Amino acid sequence: MSASGIELAEGALAGNRLALARLLTQVENDTPAGRMGLDWLFPRAGRAHLIGITGSPGTGKSSLVNRIALSYRNPMAGLAARTVGVVAIDPTSPFSGGALLGDRVRMRDLAGDSGVFIRSMAARGALGGLARQTAAAVQVMDAVGFEVILIETVGAGQSEVDIARLAQTTIVVEAPGLGDEIQAIKAGILEIADILVINKADRPGVENTERALRSMLEMGHHHHLPDHLNAGITGAQPEAEEWQPPVLKTVATDGKGTDELVVAIERHLAYLKRHGEWQRRQYARLMNELEVLVQGALVERWRSALPEDLYEEVVAQLCERSISPYQALEKLVHD
Amino acid sequence: MSASGIELAEGALAGNRLALARLLTQVENDTPAGRMGLDWLFPRAGRAHLIGITGSPGTGKSSLVNRIALSYRNPMAGLAARTVGVVAIDPTSPFSGGALLGDRVRMRDLAGDSGVFIRSMAARGALGGLARQTAAAVQVMDAVGFEVILIETVGAGQSEVDIARLAQTTIVVEAPGLGDEIQAIKAGILEIADILVINKADRPGVENTERALRSMLEMGHHHHLPDHLNAGITGAQPEAEEWQPPVLKTVATDGKGTDELVVAIERHLAYLKRHGEWQRRQYARLMNELEVLVQGALVERWRSALPEDLYEEVVAQLCERSISPYQALEKLVHD
Repeated sequence: MSASGIELAEGALAGNRLALARLLTQVENDTPAGRMGLDWLFPRAGRAHLIGITGSPGTGKSSLVNRIALSYRNPMAGLAARTVGVVAIDPTSPFSGGALLGDRVRMRDLAGDSGVFIRSMAARGALGGLARQTAAAVQVMDAVGFEVILIETVGAGQSEVDIARLAQTTIVVEAPGLGDEIQAIKAGILEIADILVINKADRPGVENTERALRSMLEMGHHHHLPDHLNAGITGAQPEAEEWQPPVLKTVATDGKGTDELVVAIERHLAYLKRHGEWQRRQYARLMNELEVLVQGALVERWRSALPEDLYEEVVAQLCERSISPYQALEKLVHD
Repeated sequence: MSASGIELAEGALAGNRLALARLLTQVENDTPAGRMGLDWLFPRAGRAHLIGITGSPGTGKSSLVNRIALSYRNPMAGLAARTVGVVAIDPTSPFSGGALLGDRVRMRDLAGDSGVFIRSMAARGALGGLARQTAAAVQVMDAVGFEVILIETVGAGQSEVDIARLAQTTIVVEAPGLGDEIQAIKAGILEIADILVINKADRPGVENTERALRSMLEMGHHHHLPDHLNAGITGAQPEAEEWQPPVLKTVATDGKGTDELVVAIERHLAYLKRHGEWQRRQYARLMNELEVLVQGALVERWRSALPEDLYEEVVAQLCERSISPYQALEKLVHD
């Protein structure tokens, strides 16, 4: 007989790593046991600091994540050590069926430390699926007591942006010498950056990258407020303190700059708590999660209530283009 | 008074480029006029060859798209010229409010050719929004008679994969000398590639890139069928002709290899039509479009039927973590 979701959750909470791993599998696969464990743990979640690390391929994010974890475990004088969970989202091939960077490879520097737990996620299904799986895994780690959770996403597309939105602090990683087109990408991704890191900062071209990032940051800053709002705040009120994303340089392979990065992360955390942003991001995250669940449930309910022959008839008309998608919608969903 | 959607559609169909541009704006913004124009045009769509061009930043996709368009306009001996629509999806910053690569920059080589129409799309909203906007714009161009439609996406995330799925032929662009991590990305994206292009093939490292791509293609090929299916087809039946994605080399900046690329695209088109794949992809595209519309309509209907105070009460309980997201779902959506 297999353990129930609540048994697994109790085990995970007591520090049993195997129970945690098994619970995560249940939760990622959205099984009844997984849901039960998640429901049971839910009131305990909401305390961890979620840190998203995202950026383009080739920037060395994985090494940087390892280094950040090490810095939290062995902090500089004056900082307390924290327990660290890592959720690494690797694009996978349907043919490998698993993450290409396995847990074991990533564990190397952190092996044997019970204050660290690393989970590699495979992008098995649709985008929504991965976002849901990630949110659930993060919630479990949070609830069982990991104080810092690093969420690493590979790539720079919308899916990564969505996943990074889970985080309270988002770090965008860049590297010197990437192409021109990267600039365009960054315009979108800069919007979500709380901290910018130029990794591989010992490589040529680091000054150019820094200059480009700073000028894009400045552009963004000037345009944050629509004109009529800018006009409204001239003079009268003192402006509220606003977070200025710092641009930091690191060499993750030898650990250069990572302690400074952790200091910046802690500064951002303090800023969030001081301004109610912590609460606001928590709220946004929960609402987003609820929205995804509601959407799925509504589609399921609609589909099971719909006469199969009506559905097939409408689809046939759509495919022979005698009705348009909007006209098909009208036939399938009534007010 | 502004023109109706049908007037715009009639104008666009008659070759009026301003009417087409205005209709596309209505359609992208999902206005009533846009929907009306789209419904009116819908029966005429479904004839264009949709070609997706996707890949990582820095691979020179934009130049390649320009070259492909030029090749279709001025084809090699033996091929007929085709009219070309281009939909370029650029990640944008909310502060610029528009695509960074404007229409005018991209038009340079193709300016003044009435057989070419280029539309840059800004990623204004959510992922689903962009996919919908793109599908709608493509449908309009298709219906008014553009024979080939090139859909360019920047990046390598799930959103790009989703948009590429619109296409009947998907080209994945690679360039020499990108990092190791790119390999992992490609494992996922290779699955959608009908044609692989190594652009910037005059750069060092092209042999390594080609070798890596070919070995990943081979890996993918071996694992296409689960073992029990592989066992089932040994001997007895001759295997159906299967499309083998070719790996081509181009230098888009001087046009090297682009005619050969167009030949490969035409070969793929012939393959699709020979095997009923053309119909199958058309069907999948329409079904996906319908699904997105249904989902949106269901959420809207549910939200307007839900008592506002119930919603707020449940959200409050969720935010103070006295109920979990699944428990909130149960309160908000009844069977």
